[in-house]
Amino acid sequence: MTAFDYAGRLDRARRQMAERKVDVLLASVGSDLPYLTGYRAMPLERLTMAVIPQQGEPILVIPELEAARVATDAGTFSVRSWSETDDVISLVAGLIGGASTAMITDQTWAVFLLALQEALPGTAFRSARPVTEALRIIKEPAEIELLRRAGSSADTVAGLLAAHRFAGKSEARVSREIAGLLEENGTDVAGFAIVASGPNGASPHHEPGERVIREGDAIVIDFGGTVGGYGSDTTRMFHVGEPPARYREVHEIVRAAQRAAIDTVAPGVPAESVDAAARKVITAAGYGDYFIHRTGHGIGLDGHEDPYIVAGNDQLLDVGMAFSIEPGIYLPGEFGIRIEDIVICTEAGADRLNRSPRSVAIVD
Amino acid sequence: MTAFDYAGRLDRARRQMAERKVDVLLASVGSDLPYLTGYRAMPLERLTMAVIPQQGEPILVIPELEAARVATDAGTFSVRSWSETDDVISLVAGLIGGASTAMITDQTWAVFLLALQEALPGTAFRSARPVTEALRIIKEPAEIELLRRAGSSADTVAGLLAAHRFAGKSEARVSREIAGLLEENGTDVAGFAIVASGPNGASPHHEPGERVIREGDAIVIDFGGTVGGYGSDTTRMFHVGEPPARYREVHEIVRAAQRAAIDTVAPGVPAESVDAAARKVITAAGYGDYFIHRTGHGIGLDGHEDPYIVAGNDQLLDVGMAFSIEPGIYLPGEFGIRIEDIVICTEAGADRLNRSPRSVAIVD
Repeated sequence: MTAFDYAGRLDRARRQMAERKVDVLLASVGSDLPYLTGYRAMPLERLTMAVIPQQGEPILVIPELEAARVATDAGTFSVRSWSETDDVISLVAGLIGGASTAMITDQTWAVFLLALQEALPGTAFRSARPVTEALRIIKEPAEIELLRRAGSSADTVAGLLAAHRFAGKSEARVSREIAGLLEENGTDVAGFAIVASGPNGASPHHEPGERVIREGDAIVIDFGGTVGGYGSDTTRMFHVGEPPARYREVHEIVRAAQRAAIDTVAPGVPAESVDAAARKVITAAGYGDYFIHRTGHGIGLDGHEDPYIVAGNDQLLDVGMAFSIEPGIYLPGEFGIRIEDIVICTEAGADRLNRSPRSVAIVD
Repeated sequence: MTAFDYAGRLDRARRQMAERKVDVLLASVGSDLPYLTGYRAMPLERLTMAVIPQQGEPILVIPELEAARVATDAGTFSVRSWSETDDVISLVAGLIGGASTAMITDQTWAVFLLALQEALPGTAFRSARPVTEALRIIKEPAEIELLRRAGSSADTVAGLLAAHRFAGKSEARVSREIAGLLEENGTDVAGFAIVASGPNGASPHHEPGERVIREGDAIVIDFGGTVGGYGSDTTRMFHVGEPPARYREVHEIVRAAQRAAIDTVAPGVPAESVDAAARKVITAAGYGDYFIHRTGHGIGLDGHEDPYIVAGNDQLLDVGMAFSIEPGIYLPGEFGIRIEDIVICTEAGADRLNRSPRSVAIVD
């Protein structure tokens, strides 16, 4: 396990809080908590919450039966465990005290926010995203190294899939096989594997199902897992047997769009310009209405995080940002094509963490 | 796939809303949404939200790129998809309109609640749990059938584990093997498999790790998965080689406590009485301080849901409730013991959905 500098992160969070006149930051389920403490809360009904005052001791409130899970590297926090019959809302409200402004992390369950709002009517609650994003969006070298290892593991699997048997198997089965391949090839935890065959490929977030893959199918495979908590996310195209000319043509358009977007990445470039670069290629080819999602999303401890590569996001890219570039064209009833790599923004432009071939893999 | 009566559920939800003078119910990630619509939202940063006015058309707001995922059995809802550059908060706020009271489901992300509160300062937001619990806590026959199938699959795996090889394998490896066994034996999706060996058994929510199991280890195995979305959750004790007398003694206490709790289950009995029955046995044996969690939790579309079998919960059990009974004793530095079954409350008392032997399985 990489030892991150949690004390440094906490200092930076507090400087952000001070600038924004925030008295306390509350972090529950989701990735902000492990970013700040090294501990990931179980996403269950018992509240886990880090209470970080702008000044004073940070405290991690945790269910008693999970206290033994807290890693020692949450050493900047003191741990306060609560038992089954304690009123944890009162406990946390007491720690928040007379704060006039509290920030709360985005993925915290609404039920806990509502209860805290009721317990503390004098406290204004706001999203913690401005603070947590400011920290998390620029990856530290150790984070980039984990992203690189995750990407490399996914690339190994992409290579194996090019020689994999698909015909006669259900999407769900192939999805499970990919999970196994990831875990056998360097990924700690296989996270997801979208396998969308034939017309299902036109649904970008297709849930792999019982459809059996057959000769002539195009297959969209979008998969990833984590190494040390940091994710991979890559999409490649497979075709059972030779694809028709139209498929090749659309694939080339997506590939050119992805290349154009990657070539646009540089420090100081607005995120929306990267989206626009991909969209321009696809629109010029006449498929603009079929590119129905943004070009990319940040990646780190969360599979989707800032920066979002989307129209309207004028945030400037900077060295150390990590994000996907994944334009696609989705033709309902026919097929879908998406090509996705994770890149790091460097002084020299995009450093791709995925290097497997972006051509269509012809498979059995 | 079982076809549930979503229209009937919606009617019942609306009657509950009317009784509580709630104008609109908002359901996002978590199990309330699939309970009401048949559709489970992806737990990602793009908002999916069912907007259910007490009167008028219910609408499912969903990201455009996930629109194709919505099953046709969400037929009681009309679908409103939003594209990447739409302002989904304005869209949902417009649908909520002039509601004075809105309920929102518990697992909705705080960031969305905060944004809706800001957009609708005249609307009071409350937890939807009173309404969703009233519906979900009493299982329909088709739900019980799925819980029964999930339990039966877990029992098959418990039987296989009694003849499984443990020594020389890491906890993490055994956890993965259990996931595989579940999916090979009737479980759709393996959800979790806590494997806590030796002293790790004293941590109830231990994360299976690299500790290698060896001769003389006690092993707590707590596992489950879902069938048709409904969960199993059972815990059994394994011991590599003959256990010492003290282990046998503590195991017998937990077993007696579990039996006492199960025997207490009946319609009209407060949930806390079931907890008290287990606790009384363990306390009388001198281990009260080492039973550090509630006796059980409801189960259904969520792995943990109402009713909670815990001191202070005076809710009366009723026919059709499904919950775990899982007392435990945790001796830090030594071992832990927990025995868990899912039961259904019937007129005749507890109907156990887990039937695998509750004795210690001696394994290699």
